Formats: sequence, structure tokens, C-alpha cells
Amino acid sequence: MSFTLARRTQRMNSSAIREILKVTERPGVLSMAGGLPAPESFPIEAIRLAGDQVLSTQGAAALQYATTEGLPPLREWIARRLSRDGWQVDASQVLITTGSQQGLDLIGKVMLDEGSPVLLEQPTYLGALQAFSPYEPLFRPWAADAEGPLPQAMSGAEPARLAYLVPNYQNPSGHCIGDARRRELAELAIRSRTPIVEDNPYGELWFDTPPPPPLAARAPEQVIYLGSFSKVLAPGLRVGYIVTPRGDHADVQALRAKLLQAKQASDLHTPALNQRIVMQLLDMGFDLDGHLDTVRARYRAQRDAMAAALGRHLPQGCTWHLPQGGMFFWVSCPEHIDTSQRLPRAVEAGVAYVPGASFYAGMAAGQGRSLRLSFVTLSPMQIDEAVARLASCLA
Amino acid sequence: MSFTLARRTQRMNSSAIREILKVTERPGVLSMAGGLPAPESFPIEAIRLAGDQVLSTQGAAALQYATTEGLPPLREWIARRLSRDGWQVDASQVLITTGSQQGLDLIGKVMLDEGSPVLLEQPTYLGALQAFSPYEPLFRPWAADAEGPLPQAMSGAEPARLAYLVPNYQNPSGHCIGDARRRELAELAIRSRTPIVEDNPYGELWFDTPPPPPLAARAPEQVIYLGSFSKVLAPGLRVGYIVTPRGDHADVQALRAKLLQAKQASDLHTPALNQRIVMQLLDMGFDLDGHLDTVRARYRAQRDAMAAALGRHLPQGCTWHLPQGGMFFWVSCPEHIDTSQRLPRAVEAGVAYVPGASFYAGMAAGQGRSLRLSFVTLSPMQIDEAVARLASCLA
Repeated sequence: MSFTLARRTQRMNSSAIREILKVTERPGVLSMAGGLPAPESFPIEAIRLAGDQVLSTQGAAALQYATTEGLPPLREWIARRLSRDGWQVDASQVLITTGSQQGLDLIGKVMLDEGSPVLLEQPTYLGALQAFSPYEPLFRPWAADAEGPLPQAMSGAEPARLAYLVPNYQNPSGHCIGDARRRELAELAIRSRTPIVEDNPYGELWFDTPPPPPLAARAPEQVIYLGSFSKVLAPGLRVGYIVTPRGDHADVQALRAKLLQAKQASDLHTPALNQRIVMQLLDMGFDLDGHLDTVRARYRAQRDAMAAALGRHLPQGCTWHLPQGGMFFWVSCPEHIDTSQRLPRAVEAGVAYVPGASFYAGMAAGQGRSLRLSFVTLSPMQIDEAVARLASCLA
Repeated sequence: MSFTLARRTQRMNSSAIREILKVTERPGVLSMAGGLPAPESFPIEAIRLAGDQVLSTQGAAALQYATTEGLPPLREWIARRLSRDGWQVDASQVLITTGSQQGLDLIGKVMLDEGSPVLLEQPTYLGALQAFSPYEPLFRPWAADAEGPLPQAMSGAEPARLAYLVPNYQNPSGHCIGDARRRELAELAIRSRTPIVEDNPYGELWFDTPPPPPLAARAPEQVIYLGSFSKVLAPGLRVGYIVTPRGDHADVQALRAKLLQAKQASDLHTPALNQRIVMQLLDMGFDLDGHLDTVRARYRAQRDAMAAALGRHLPQGCTWHLPQGGMFFWVSCPEHIDTSQRLPRAVEAGVAYVPGASFYAGMAAGQGRSLRLSFVTLSPMQIDEAVARLASCLA
């Protein structure tokens, strides 16, 4: 045998999270590593009924090849749902993807050349690093202050091919960018003609007040928006979407056409069955907003339990912010601690987390002392025990 | 707005098939264009029952994030099913993909650099052209005789990065490579160290006798094999798989690791729900072989109907071979006919096909006179009418 691999594979690495998820399958390990929603939050019975309906009444269509763009009524539902806060979305802008992870891959495929500068928050979503890396861009750290990424970073000498951010309850930092900063970012994106990729898996998971309007509402012709049903219904369905920029300028039309062609080359279309189950669920009068209220209440209680546990157990010198939504705490440890090095010991002690270094694309030195904790998988009692175990490993 | 697209997008084109599928949604058009299996061949009720079981008894797992490799028992089932004809497959070789189209994309991503030579049959599967093109390889036409692609094409001065073929009832030609030629191809692949991508969506759709053993059975360390449930159960599930080469040589391990990383970056994993529905169906004692017998009998009758209709209606100078399996007739028209040019007239007359030029990657001149007809979507009576309409457009 003899296989020559493409050069781009040198930029591809196994996810630390993935390897950790394997380890945490060991019985007895309390994992705060993966961002796995609590299965108790899935509307299983409603999905079962919807699936039954779909296969009883539209089985032939649900099991057949389908159009690459996605199911028209689902695209329309998404456009309607997103049309608020002054943002007007048309169904023609919506491309259904196999989870929003695929959206990131497709964007990388059609927008990134070798060496293309990409602005990235620090830390940033690991899955975006994995999706973009094979296209060999140049990752450029996005300078930030306490409010979030700095708008002026977009007006540098060499313009970024794209600027990627997760404005709501970011993974991993938990940070939510405020309205004023969003306005500035949107404005400068337009002025500097920087395409923004706004990834919003967590926007519905707010605890007290909804987050400010998306950047896409302020710069609808300059923002490529990503959404997903993974966090609001269930990730195992793998139904996400890209909202391409508004308008019919040649640039936008070309982007839309190439994303569609890339989607077709990648998997022809997102499973028709899954799209129709989501649509049927919504058509059956499933109370999505009521369901989200329940999920928010659950996650909020878990967040509170973790905040209490962190305060109770973590050694001095550890710091964190209270996330106002989403799924994660981002903990900074004292400088002498290397959270990657300590992970095996932690797993030995029956607890798992994701070391902060995973979220930096090798851009930032000295990031070894942070770690990400998910609060949505374990119960409040388990969270207390897990944080206690973590504390003993950090002490 | 302003979007700079990656250079690779210049190599991406919209599928003629896709555009045609849209046109053929018009009422009254009898389409022989798309390779859509007859919905009557889908085991809808069995899939409904399996879905109901999955969501009743393992809903939390079916709706949760899952491992990138795929559901372990499904990987084991596939390995067992393929282990025959002297080929021994281990579950560790199997990577579940979102349809086998995704397998092609992942292989392109990890194996093709700009300018990498890729050997392709002429004509070849359009979806492979679409999947490989964005990685900017150099398509090299694979010289062939009546038996199929010539083995010695693999021993040229510059070795191919990979050689792609569909040995069973090829799309679009319908050709099945005989056992002797397969042996020669496997042997020379090993000697020349050419990685072969053996794409086998149609192998179970034989009419009289099963096809010869796959090339993978003869060169298990040199062949990357692609399979799918799309043609044996239903395409709307989007469950396919890659079988990586056997063994634990460093080359093979690296290939496997990179395919896995590429899969993770592309969509994290194939929907857990869909994988579990397939597994549940098989676990419930669904008679897959009995089901395939029914599908074969149906497709065989449709093939016979099309063969008779072609003989009855097509003008002199049109030629074709009788396919021994699969879904397609490949018709060659007299030289003065350009099937791309005639398509609009055909659609006007209420019939659709795919022009042959779509299957050539711009490699071959003078291929404008062929066309592909699918016989699996229409009923025998409709087939007769469709071919009569086609004949009037070709006359």
C-alpha cells in the first residue's frame, strides 16, 4: 500500500474534545468536557410523533433524494423566525446544512484560499478552527477588550477574507457581546467591506434577557449567519442552516451559488427525513417557545449550581465570569497551572474538562491555564461533586 | 457588500442534473434524468416501525451528539456483510458517512492537492467530478477497451494520486467490469502502488447473476471502498460508508486518521437518528435480501421495458448496451446530434434525460451525442411513452 496525502492534511488535527469524549465514556467519570445538551431537554416524544406522522403520510418524499437548498417550507419557517429586530430574511437566503458545522466547512471551502487572513476571536470555537484549517488560511487573532472583539481590527492594511465570531454566549468563553459593540462591528464591517461570519448556536439559550439583535440585523448585506436546531431541539438530527447575505448583487449571488454547489458536492442534501421531522414538529403546533423556556430554566439552574460550586471549591487565584446564557464557564487558573498537563490526573480523579489551549489555533502563548466547563450535561448535585474533584486536581 | 471567493470555486459548477431535476418538476414531464429510485421500492412501513422503536427505546441516544466514526454495531454489520468473496473487512475500517457522496468529498479533501493526477473513467460519475474538482486535481482520462479501464494506465511515468472507478453497472454507462479485468486492475494497482477508489452504490442491483468480487477483495490494502444504503433502502436517510484499506501500516493509519478528522470537520457525525433507524431495521429482522430480490425484479422489468421501447422507437443510428444491473441506459446517437442542445426541446415535448457531456469533466471532445436514461423512476408504460417522446426529438 502507498497513500500520498494532501498537503492540507498537515493542518488537520484530531479534536482534543473528541479524544476526551472517548475517555469520558469510562464509568464513573463526571464530564464537564463535551457540550452535550442534557438528553432530558430533548422533546423525544414530540419528535417520535412527528417522525411517525412524516413516515405515515409523506414517507416516499422523506426517503427520496431532495433538493440541495433544503425543504422549502422549512426554509420559509426559518426566514420568518429570524425576521425580527429589524432583520428581514427571505427564504431564498436560507441553505439547510447538515448541522451548522457543515456551514463552517462550506464557507471555508468557497471563501478561503491558502494564506487568506481570517480574523478569529481568542479563544474561539474549536469546530471553526477544524473546519477552516484544511483550507490553509492564515489565522489572525482578533484583538479584543472587555466588551469583545475590536472593530478597528477589521480596517487593517490587509483586509481579512472573513471575520468569524460567536456573539452570543461564546463557546468557550461564555461571553455575550453588547449592543453598542455590535453596532460598531457591523458599521466597520460595512465600511471595511469585511465579510462577517456570525455563528449563533446559543442565542436562544439566554437566562434573564434575550441577547441584543444579531450583527446580521445591522449589516444584512455583509453578514453570513449560521444557525442550528441542535441546541433548541436535538443535535442528533443534524439540521442547521446558513443565511446568506441579503440582496441580489453579483457578489452575493455568486457566494450563494458557490455555497450551493459546495453543499451539493459534499452530501447532495441534508437528509430529507430529518428536515421533514423538524417541519412536521413545528406544523403540529409544537410549542417551541414553551420548550425553550423549559430548557432555559433547566440550564439556568445548572449554571447557578456550577457558579456556587466554583465559588465553594476552586482554589484561590481561579477566576471566571458568570455566563448569562449558553452552556459554558471559562475558568482561568493561576499561572503555574497547565490545564492540558493536568487533564490525565483529572480523568483519573473522575472528572473531565476541555483544556483552554484547544481553542487558540496555536496563536496565543500562555493560554495553558484556562479551561472550559459545560454545565448542561450533569445534574446540579453531580456538578458540585465534579467541581470538587476538579478543585482537588488544581490545588 | 464584498465577498472574495476562493480560487477553487472556479472549478465548481452547478450540476446539469440538478438544474434538470428542477425543470422536471413541471407537471407532465416524464423524467428519465435523475437516478431517483422508485419510491415504491422504499420499505416505508418497516422504516416507520424502526423509527418508532428507536425513538421509544433509545431516543436520548438517537437525538444526542455521537462519535464521528459512526454507530459501532452498524459498522460491525457493514463489515460482516462485506466480508465475502475472500474479502475480510473489520469494523475498524468502516467510517459512516452522510451518503457516499460525502465519502468522495472526504477522500478528495485528504488525498488531492492542486494538480494531483486523478485517473477517471470516461464517462464517469458526475458526483465524483463535483466532489473532487474543488481540490483542483488534474483529471486524467483512463484509457479503456470494451472490457473496461486498462490496467497499464496506472503504470505511467507520473503515478496517479488516485484512480476512481465504479465497477458495477457504472453511472452513467451501465457497464460492469468482468472478473478477469478486475484481477488485472487489482494486481497492477498493487504493483504501481496506485490507490484505487472503488465506488459501489449499485452492486446489489444485479438482474441475473451477482457481479464479480470487488477489487477490494483482490487488493484489500490498496483500495478505498465506498458503499451506501441509498440504493438498497432509501436515499433520503443519507447513510453511506467508506471502507478504508486493511492493515495497520503507517500509511493506512494516517489515511484513516485524516479521513476521520475531515469527517469531524465536515459535519461532526452522520445523524445518530438515521444510523440507529438503519440498525434497528436490521435488528428487527428486516429481510434485506428478500427486499433486494423485490427491488431487482422491479428494476429488471423496467429495464426490459426500456430495452423494448428503445428498440421500438429510437431512430436508426442510435446504439446502446443492455445493462445487467443498476439504473441506467447509456445511449449513443448519430454524430450530428448534440444531446445538450436538444434537451430544451425534449423538455418542451415532455421528456427529460441527462446529456452525456455532463459526465466528462471537459476531457473528451465529441461526447455530445450520448445521453443517460434512468429506468427506475417511471413505470413500464410511462417508459414506453417517454422513449417515444425522446425518439421524436432525436429524429
